[in-house]
Amino acid sequence: MSRFSLNQATIKYATVPEAIAATVGAGIPAIGLWREPVAEFGLEASAAAARDAGLRVSSLCRAGFFTKPGWRDDNLRAIEETAALGAPTLVLVAGGLPEGSRDLVGARERVRDAIGELAPAALAAGVTLSIEALHPMYVTDRAVVSTLGQALDIAEQFDARAVGVVVDTFHIFWDPAVLAQIARAGASGRIATYQVCDWNMPIAADPLLSRGYMGDGFIDFESLTRAVVAAGYDGDIECEIFNQAIWDTDYATVAAATAERYREHVEAHLAD
Amino acid sequence: MSRFSLNQATIKYATVPEAIAATVGAGIPAIGLWREPVAEFGLEASAAAARDAGLRVSSLCRAGFFTKPGWRDDNLRAIEETAALGAPTLVLVAGGLPEGSRDLVGARERVRDAIGELAPAALAAGVTLSIEALHPMYVTDRAVVSTLGQALDIAEQFDARAVGVVVDTFHIFWDPAVLAQIARAGASGRIATYQVCDWNMPIAADPLLSRGYMGDGFIDFESLTRAVVAAGYDGDIECEIFNQAIWDTDYATVAAATAERYREHVEAHLAD
Repeated sequence: MSRFSLNQATIKYATVPEAIAATVGAGIPAIGLWREPVAEFGLEASAAAARDAGLRVSSLCRAGFFTKPGWRDDNLRAIEETAALGAPTLVLVAGGLPEGSRDLVGARERVRDAIGELAPAALAAGVTLSIEALHPMYVTDRAVVSTLGQALDIAEQFDARAVGVVVDTFHIFWDPAVLAQIARAGASGRIATYQVCDWNMPIAADPLLSRGYMGDGFIDFESLTRAVVAAGYDGDIECEIFNQAIWDTDYATVAAATAERYREHVEAHLAD
Repeated sequence: MSRFSLNQATIKYATVPEAIAATVGAGIPAIGLWREPVAEFGLEASAAAARDAGLRVSSLCRAGFFTKPGWRDDNLRAIEETAALGAPTLVLVAGGLPEGSRDLVGARERVRDAIGELAPAALAAGVTLSIEALHPMYVTDRAVVSTLGQALDIAEQFDARAVGVVVDTFHIFWDPAVLAQIARAGASGRIATYQVCDWNMPIAADPLLSRGYMGDGFIDFESLTRAVVAAGYDGDIECEIFNQAIWDTDYATVAAATAERYREHVEAHLAD
């Protein structure tokens, strides 16, 4: 379990201390934090609490949303928060179409330009920006970056220390090019984090919440995990699940379940 | 309106004679038929009814589902039905993962092999098989063919008279590569039909029914239609909408609405 990390969104209603306690209690050595609960508990206090508990902070979620007004200041703040938490990477969700627009090509250009503006600040702070491709069903409202290949097309324009990508099984497993694009991401040193959760069916009434524990859905974690290993990624592997039933379960039970599913469906494929 | 066709699924509950009457009543010169209502009214009777009404039959929907047992005989029958109706093309939906499987790579190989088995029969019957890429949200349960590029990777292995692709705005508008892939489809003579409907948000509780009239959602019909025109496609353009509220509306009203939206959002971009 040395590489496993519990992303705080999996226990969405937990405060930072509650999330840390659940993570430690399940024997998990790292945690992925979210900005809202960190702000609520305090940035310095959150950093100290993770450190005192002996946890690595594997990432901070999330910034981006480049098609919304005020994105620049918010993203610069998020870079500083990531550095203060000692996390290596800040996850970026691109944002959807601007209000009233149907221009995906233009929105995608704005995302590239925005990341170009942020890259120097990320480099200076020692933080890697992780561009997260979201499943194409979220293209209009949440992320105009829809494939790993598209995320890499953007990331590869910048210093690899400043801009990488998220490899998230839920968002990219469907892609006929996924294995080739994972290899490409490794070759250009761009895999900043590997996130795992399953694709449940049928799609939940709120499509954001259609994720599940590894093994409950349709994702072949073996082929994806082997590809990530072959690509040279040796960092933390986060479990991030948005699922109402899981959110309604007590934190210790959820943390233990993620660890068990991680061992069976992911860790088993880390070594040859 | 000379290139417009009403796909019968837009008025799902109509019998073949009712669908033909609605189409003619709205001044639409072509119709896309579905196998179930055709079987109910009779194959020869359906062909005669369309002919007597002066309608072209622009396509037959649908066959495929290659991961299900019995696919071969069903597809061979569908090819014969397409020929009997005088339609140029049979739309193929690939089917999802086989029961209990998570092997997308294997399922995709089976689709390619199945189409290879069917191509000679299609050629002999004078019918083009149209491979339809479905939106990636349907990858596990309905179609392991998820992008236009992937459909072309399969189609281009066979005679262009036997195997082409569907360009369907709902399924492919999100794709960062969509304009390049439409151009590619034109260059290799593979666009067998162009289908239009909009992407409504939020996604319907049944994600199959999240389509809308052109102009109601988020699709930029101008860029897609111009790309299809530039690619050299000069055939019929079908409006195919799965939407419960539209299905619950009387057929004449729906047919007239599709024609009006087609003129405004699609036909306006057919000529330079």
